[in-house]
Amino acid sequence: MPMTISEKILAKAAGKKEVEAGEIIMANIDVAMMHDLTGPLAVEAFKKIGSEKVWDPSKIVVLFDHQVPADSIEAAENHIIMRKFVKEQNIKDFYDVREGICHQVLPEKGHVTPGDVIVGTDSHTCTHGALGAFATGIGSTDMAMVLATGKLWFKVPETIQFKIEGQPKDHVYAKDIILYIIGKIGIDGATYKACEFTGSTVKNMNISERLVLCNMAIEMGGKTGIIEADEKTIEYVKKRSKKPYNVMKTDPDAPSLEKIQVNIEGLEPQIACPHNVDNVKPISEVEGTEIDQIFIGSCTNGRIEDLRDAAKILKGKKVSKKVRMLIIPASREVYTKALNEGLIKIFIDAGAIICNPCCGPCLGGHIGLLGPGEVSLSTSNRNFKGRQGSPESEVYLSSAAVAAASAIKGKITHPKNI
Amino acid sequence: MPMTISEKILAKAAGKKEVEAGEIIMANIDVAMMHDLTGPLAVEAFKKIGSEKVWDPSKIVVLFDHQVPADSIEAAENHIIMRKFVKEQNIKDFYDVREGICHQVLPEKGHVTPGDVIVGTDSHTCTHGALGAFATGIGSTDMAMVLATGKLWFKVPETIQFKIEGQPKDHVYAKDIILYIIGKIGIDGATYKACEFTGSTVKNMNISERLVLCNMAIEMGGKTGIIEADEKTIEYVKKRSKKPYNVMKTDPDAPSLEKIQVNIEGLEPQIACPHNVDNVKPISEVEGTEIDQIFIGSCTNGRIEDLRDAAKILKGKKVSKKVRMLIIPASREVYTKALNEGLIKIFIDAGAIICNPCCGPCLGGHIGLLGPGEVSLSTSNRNFKGRQGSPESEVYLSSAAVAAASAIKGKITHPKNI
Repeated sequence: MPMTISEKILAKAAGKKEVEAGEIIMANIDVAMMHDLTGPLAVEAFKKIGSEKVWDPSKIVVLFDHQVPADSIEAAENHIIMRKFVKEQNIKDFYDVREGICHQVLPEKGHVTPGDVIVGTDSHTCTHGALGAFATGIGSTDMAMVLATGKLWFKVPETIQFKIEGQPKDHVYAKDIILYIIGKIGIDGATYKACEFTGSTVKNMNISERLVLCNMAIEMGGKTGIIEADEKTIEYVKKRSKKPYNVMKTDPDAPSLEKIQVNIEGLEPQIACPHNVDNVKPISEVEGTEIDQIFIGSCTNGRIEDLRDAAKILKGKKVSKKVRMLIIPASREVYTKALNEGLIKIFIDAGAIICNPCCGPCLGGHIGLLGPGEVSLSTSNRNFKGRQGSPESEVYLSSAAVAAASAIKGKITHPKNI
Repeated sequence: MPMTISEKILAKAAGKKEVEAGEIIMANIDVAMMHDLTGPLAVEAFKKIGSEKVWDPSKIVVLFDHQVPADSIEAAENHIIMRKFVKEQNIKDFYDVREGICHQVLPEKGHVTPGDVIVGTDSHTCTHGALGAFATGIGSTDMAMVLATGKLWFKVPETIQFKIEGQPKDHVYAKDIILYIIGKIGIDGATYKACEFTGSTVKNMNISERLVLCNMAIEMGGKTGIIEADEKTIEYVKKRSKKPYNVMKTDPDAPSLEKIQVNIEGLEPQIACPHNVDNVKPISEVEGTEIDQIFIGSCTNGRIEDLRDAAKILKGKKVSKKVRMLIIPASREVYTKALNEGLIKIFIDAGAIICNPCCGPCLGGHIGLLGPGEVSLSTSNRNFKGRQGSPESEVYLSSAAVAAASAIKGKITHPKNI
């Protein structure tokens, strides 16, 4: 039977020749990821079900990124719980407070290869589908089941294949394209679907841009984002991993496949306006909106390419006194590259604040929260009411380039106007 | 009448020819400093007493350093209150979330000159006495009085003059000397005294080291720390300030003067052990104590000289996997220098975490809090129970050099043993 990538991966993981959309299967898990915020709940549930040893410590990755360094005694206690678990269970792939955001560190450190089934106790786990894996966020009690047995049930999702064509204009990035798509389809437009991105535009994207597309699949309800592995994927993966990989391709006549054409010719930079990710407008409609805080970072747009884009715009310029600008590299590797390439110096000279790699204000954590009436422009993935602090604050979402240009002017600004 | 520096400054500020210890005077304030944590209380009290305009906006400095970037909605609200106040009152010397710790930024930006009376709503305001000013921490309601009238009452303190003599051994710094003194005299050994530091050792110290001595005067109960301005002070001040200054000297026969000789010949690096700053031991007695977190930073030891000392030790070495190492430059200026001198790169390559300039874990803020049972080695100034997080954690205090050496070994280590 013709199948999609997601179906092929899940079939293989279930030890079956074929699966079809809607079918419930039990799949073997290749990578199970937990972080500091949700990990302790999973560990608690794991112990409650009477388990003593995890099924396979070499398939578990534990990482601290949400509250690092610990911002409260409770966070420090969570860290202690996870460090103890990692030691007890002999889990070697443990990244303590310094390494960065899970969805950046996992690909960087070679934990993600094409054909994997990856689960993580974080909704943006779908990011990893950019490398041709089936990756999805799960709850902490589901994770307890995975830790104990190495298996989890899935309802095989249908697939929406977004075929993206066209050459992006200057200052248009993967972020603008995915915001455009979410704006069209809506926050529930792809509920429980595997969102596959294909087409010449995606083919031309580097891995970082592909990670952006898949990262935001959840923002339209997707079960996963996924992109067929190609030579760029294999080059990226081989540099970082010795794990075997399986390149899967969607058969064009797979029965569960819905196809959506996306033409990005002439697309402007896109902005998601408060308070929903699908409240998307072209920048021309919101240019001039005054901003209090700019945040470049997160698992969506905190990568070296984003920092390079921002640095090109900020070089020799000054951040407006009207705004506070936070730049948070997504990982230690990204920070180190930015340091070595002189980007950190450009940012500091411009007047930005550089924080340690972590999730930052994205989820209303402990760095850069907003007060009532404040407005943020953020390269992250969610702008729900109160997401970055006060329920009376507002969050706009954009690319790193728009964020950098807006920092200079103190208001939403198209990079071409700098 | 012969007088001490403190008496001379207070006499001048009170418009009197002379004052004597124990006398209550009303002094004109030269600089009033508020930060994000205590400033809102002062503003509230200022409004409660019915005041509308501050006495002189040019003498008020407002700065955010404790919870930056805002770590909670409440912190963001405090920032909003202070930004509004600064605007209403036309206060120009306002440093928002990016500039660094008040006790580093005030001297750097030229707000401190010899002969000033400086008050701040922070207990370590005594730091500024290192430049020959009379500087002391005050409460928020006292600050309301200052904001309204530009004056504050003081009981003129008696002076203890610590005459420090001797050539420090390798790896012995101002921090070791002040810990040694506090260990000898006790946390209440200089209650309400002006602690004057003099002698050839102090004369040979650079401004950063002198700031360390005065910073910790409060840890033995001192009303202020103070050091007679000399050519190094004037050079430092003239580079940064156009304000007039008055160099005062203590008359050796001032009646209120108590003299204590401190000989530092042969002194080892000193460590303050849990849970009091006067629980001081030579490093040889505690070497080998295992550590979970190392913190280099704070208004005590987050200066460029501290980072240089740490970098010399860390260059080409790795932080032990047993510890988390946080390095938090005390200010934007310090961070920028460290970046330009390649120190940040040394720290990152060694495996440290670099955070944005702020108070960090020193006061149990929002970066690097400790959980139960955890042990920290910190270059900050206080190790009270729970100061950096859980009341079941422990904090040791040391110089930056000892902190760096200990980071490599994962336990308290003399730098000579690296």
